[in-house]
Amino acid sequence: MENVGDPSRPNWAIVLHAGAGNFSRDQLQESGEPHRAALMMALKRGRRILQSEQGTSLTAVEIVVRALEDCPWFNAGRGSVFTHEGLHELDASIMDGRTLACGAVANTRVAQHPITLARRVMEQTPHVMLAGAGADAFAAGSRVRLVPNSYFSTPYRRRQWEDALSSTSDKFGTVGCVALDRHGNLAAGTSTGGLTNKRPGRVGDSPIIGAGTYANNRTCGISASGIGEQFIRHAVAAQISAMIEFGGRSLHQAAHLLLDKRLPQRAGGVIGIDPRGNILCHYTTSGMYRGWADSTGRLQTKIWD
Amino acid sequence: MENVGDPSRPNWAIVLHAGAGNFSRDQLQESGEPHRAALMMALKRGRRILQSEQGTSLTAVEIVVRALEDCPWFNAGRGSVFTHEGLHELDASIMDGRTLACGAVANTRVAQHPITLARRVMEQTPHVMLAGAGADAFAAGSRVRLVPNSYFSTPYRRRQWEDALSSTSDKFGTVGCVALDRHGNLAAGTSTGGLTNKRPGRVGDSPIIGAGTYANNRTCGISASGIGEQFIRHAVAAQISAMIEFGGRSLHQAAHLLLDKRLPQRAGGVIGIDPRGNILCHYTTSGMYRGWADSTGRLQTKIWD
Repeated sequence: MENVGDPSRPNWAIVLHAGAGNFSRDQLQESGEPHRAALMMALKRGRRILQSEQGTSLTAVEIVVRALEDCPWFNAGRGSVFTHEGLHELDASIMDGRTLACGAVANTRVAQHPITLARRVMEQTPHVMLAGAGADAFAAGSRVRLVPNSYFSTPYRRRQWEDALSSTSDKFGTVGCVALDRHGNLAAGTSTGGLTNKRPGRVGDSPIIGAGTYANNRTCGISASGIGEQFIRHAVAAQISAMIEFGGRSLHQAAHLLLDKRLPQRAGGVIGIDPRGNILCHYTTSGMYRGWADSTGRLQTKIWD
Repeated sequence: MENVGDPSRPNWAIVLHAGAGNFSRDQLQESGEPHRAALMMALKRGRRILQSEQGTSLTAVEIVVRALEDCPWFNAGRGSVFTHEGLHELDASIMDGRTLACGAVANTRVAQHPITLARRVMEQTPHVMLAGAGADAFAAGSRVRLVPNSYFSTPYRRRQWEDALSSTSDKFGTVGCVALDRHGNLAAGTSTGGLTNKRPGRVGDSPIIGAGTYANNRTCGISASGIGEQFIRHAVAAQISAMIEFGGRSLHQAAHLLLDKRLPQRAGGVIGIDPRGNILCHYTTSGMYRGWADSTGRLQTKIWD
């Protein structure tokens, strides 16, 4: 199943994001160099898995998203935004394009790596999604690392929350990864702390299969970042897949049509990979933390154009 | 916007379901006549709204789903199944095809009418989905009727749960409605108690916009019932909409392709209406509680073929 017949076609490919947003260069200290270094470190972890014969896209996605969850600068895992009540409620989802198996958690307060908890839901339960206290009860029994909720707090996010308490905030951020392995299998995953100062219980698009995450070997893998409510309304990830499968569009055409013509302006971005290893990063915000690599030697991170 | 130019094209249309399932005629007492009477009562409530000049499809959907939630025989509102812990956790979603506005609640334990709570989320918050304790906290502040959790219990569902405690259960059931009003606006809604003996926190397809519910004036309104995890994996409602919008399929072609060729056998069913007032009921289970009416005088309920 390797693409040995076509030297221009990669054997494997990976793309990650750590959020699309309307941030300016001025807002990021040092031109975002530390952020790009964190993206590169996560990217290389995924690359190492995909370079090995046994590496699967599903594991690459999980490992990359875990690395981004561990990084305190991105809104997922440690460094997640605060809810209105001053806590952290985390969402994540993961999907296997080979089987369409998927798992998701919403509003977990205790899983250090929500993406791993989502994979456990996929692999250890007959369900797709667990939310709230039920997700945390499952976490306690499923051998994932548990942490006190304060583990997710950082001084930067606390200040953001304190500012937001006196005004409304539309701060969002997400991390995600899509990978294609040597066996032709696609996988996708997304993880987030949600919206700054969000109402307890609010669920955005990241844990919604078909909105923030989708993977199907027939079509593509997708992970989204942006105004979650808009991505749910437009079922962005599922509609991109359906436009490829049933509408004859390419991954790029589908993503551009949906984000440019259907969603509101500056609503967010998506990353994706198709079965031929074509990599997509498309966003309508001012920037998107992102990076990609493949078996032809590509290895790059970017924030703006 | 009325279809006055084409006498065969209905001005308004409505379709409802109270669950697709693999039940036999033997399992239903009295050939399901009481169930069909309940469907007819709900259907007539929706018809009354759509017959009036001011009636909207969104209100028709809400009122019909409320009537089905009130009926103790269907798995939504009163008569919902029991969770593993012996409680009731209810899910619902609603969507306005004119604006793509939508609202959803997962795992509410206190809202007498989860569909109304979902509409409140849509209309009174910037969010799409609230889950668990956060949904219940919102319910308490949003002037919906609150009930003790035991309100939802019925002896029949308690026996089902007690039986399921000693074995696994795949009992499912859902209610839903899709409507087209005189102004050409589509709306859809779905409500459920979920799976008998389900793990606390489990979220099925009913509150997932794009899986169990979708509405878009360009394409169709959809409400699904079946094995929720399969409907999430295949993003059924969103993919049907995308197949119409981007793949040139009719509503019927899209639903048949997805349910017959993509989903596992006997996974469930969908109801839908397209902008011309064509009504769809398609299921791969043995039966589906359903009914429909339109401005040309059609008015019917069915359980089997």
